[in-house]
Amino acid sequence: MAEPSSVLVASILGEYGAATRKELERVLESGEPRRHLYEPAADYPRRGGRMLRPSICIAATRAFGGRMDEAIHSAVSLELMHNAFLVHDDIEDESDLRRGEPTLHAKHGVPVALNVGDGLLVMGLTPLVENQRRLGPHLSMRVFEEALRMARESVEGQAIELGWREDNALDLVEADYLEMILKKTCWYTILYPLRIGALIGRRDRFELDRLIRFGFFLGAAFQIQDDLLNLIGDADRYGKELAGDLFEGKRTLMMIHALQQSGTADRKIVGEVLGKPREERSEGEVRWLRQWMDASGSIEYGREFAHGLAGAALHEFESAFEAVPDSRDRRFLEALPTWVLERA
Amino acid sequence: MAEPSSVLVASILGEYGAATRKELERVLESGEPRRHLYEPAADYPRRGGRMLRPSICIAATRAFGGRMDEAIHSAVSLELMHNAFLVHDDIEDESDLRRGEPTLHAKHGVPVALNVGDGLLVMGLTPLVENQRRLGPHLSMRVFEEALRMARESVEGQAIELGWREDNALDLVEADYLEMILKKTCWYTILYPLRIGALIGRRDRFELDRLIRFGFFLGAAFQIQDDLLNLIGDADRYGKELAGDLFEGKRTLMMIHALQQSGTADRKIVGEVLGKPREERSEGEVRWLRQWMDASGSIEYGREFAHGLAGAALHEFESAFEAVPDSRDRRFLEALPTWVLERA
Repeated sequence: MAEPSSVLVASILGEYGAATRKELERVLESGEPRRHLYEPAADYPRRGGRMLRPSICIAATRAFGGRMDEAIHSAVSLELMHNAFLVHDDIEDESDLRRGEPTLHAKHGVPVALNVGDGLLVMGLTPLVENQRRLGPHLSMRVFEEALRMARESVEGQAIELGWREDNALDLVEADYLEMILKKTCWYTILYPLRIGALIGRRDRFELDRLIRFGFFLGAAFQIQDDLLNLIGDADRYGKELAGDLFEGKRTLMMIHALQQSGTADRKIVGEVLGKPREERSEGEVRWLRQWMDASGSIEYGREFAHGLAGAALHEFESAFEAVPDSRDRRFLEALPTWVLERA
Repeated sequence: MAEPSSVLVASILGEYGAATRKELERVLESGEPRRHLYEPAADYPRRGGRMLRPSICIAATRAFGGRMDEAIHSAVSLELMHNAFLVHDDIEDESDLRRGEPTLHAKHGVPVALNVGDGLLVMGLTPLVENQRRLGPHLSMRVFEEALRMARESVEGQAIELGWREDNALDLVEADYLEMILKKTCWYTILYPLRIGALIGRRDRFELDRLIRFGFFLGAAFQIQDDLLNLIGDADRYGKELAGDLFEGKRTLMMIHALQQSGTADRKIVGEVLGKPREERSEGEVRWLRQWMDASGSIEYGREFAHGLAGAALHEFESAFEAVPDSRDRRFLEALPTWVLERA
């Protein structure tokens, strides 16, 4: 009898996560300068995390006919690049907490943290050179090309979001939000790991764009659920500041919805609160924003939207993975749309 | 009759610089998001500059038997990565001016500038994928590998220098300084462009480590001369703040020498001035530091040190380029040790 899908997801994340972590530790072994580079560089990657991205990469490689050892360097690369983005994003967003501990720049100052982020990016690209031993130069170059595409999408997504904050944008619509998270979240969380899996497993003989809609819907459901957890989750379990997104003035789907539902008076208040520098936003104001969102029905709207996207992802899975034979890895990928809504 | 070497250097920098700039403009063509990413990304690369690094890359490729079109993508990549480092370094050093204009973070704020630096890095790596058309996948992978080595050395060098500032290090010796600039300057300014030139020109059949001593001595002479110009140069011609290095508390060779020459009383004053946050260092204090350096004979010491290094570079050139036939490009590389001391 097949495992229930939630058990399957947990079990694959545990198994592939452990394999990635083992290889990751080899890369994180301390070099010099230790105190101002390699020690802080190992900080975020060792704070744990679900290892969702490397697990998707390994599972996709296997589902498409490859082996774990062919995917492991790309998986480690992805996890390190993810951590590099987190370090820089935390500086850009002036975040205080990451996985329940002070952010890197809060501990070491912006100059050291910024440079450590660059270091993590370089460390993250290095396994793509090591790919050559298992994949040869052509396929390794293709993976590198996909990594650059992903990094570019992420930087563009981040630029869009930073721009909204700089401009204090209040008139966004759902399509703006979806375009931003396609770039900022979906590419590096779902699409890139799936694409390199298909690339490696099928030796560059799979039309990668067939994965776009599944990856987009799944990644968008993931991001909206993440933003919902930030608004409603329990700080201890979630690890970031509760409602940190509101302190940061983040334009989430729920924020965009609430703005659309509001009259001139409320929009004016929100505009003033979001237009302030972060450190001037008070707890009282954040509490007001949170209640205003509730009153606008935006939490419920976000939940329904995420459900709709997960359903669409499930539907798209059929055509995207049509040519892929049944396997535990395929079932893992198929279970993800349901899983992203269930995680807390 | 051969051109005088200073004319030759100016002429090659002009010629190869223009070729690089033309290709660079193609890469900088504006995409979206424009205002918060691609427009600011084109800012530093368009502020001019000597194009020393891409010119060395192209000249080395040709001296070792290759063609300009085989080197051009690597040259553009290098120039973009150089600009990415400048953007991040300016944030880390809290610099106000770059090539006579406000730094990127002074214009756009730290969040946007940091992300733009990441964008420039991604844009800088992209031509290394395009290398494949001319160089094939194996050689392209080797260039990518060298680019990562260079980026890692740069990040490590930056970490060492940031660490000195964080720790308010006052007991450094010449060897510490030389190790730091080997990583922070020599690798990406001289060694990397030479190495990929030899790699491309000789199709991966040249022992790259033969270039290390020449590149190190030349790069070190270049950096010390750069630091001297910061102390003594004319702000209008130099483009950065006059004595900006003193405001930043930078541990230059001259600073290290002056500290070594000083008694307890002066060392105590310097320690206090350098230990302050940058914005608290007054103009009077910076003027005092400058006079103290003069009185310690440190400017003269730096000048002699740079001359000694340039002489050593000239000497090493003979053995490093022994197997390379005479050409205009070889003569350009040979002229560089003299040129770095003459530029103002």
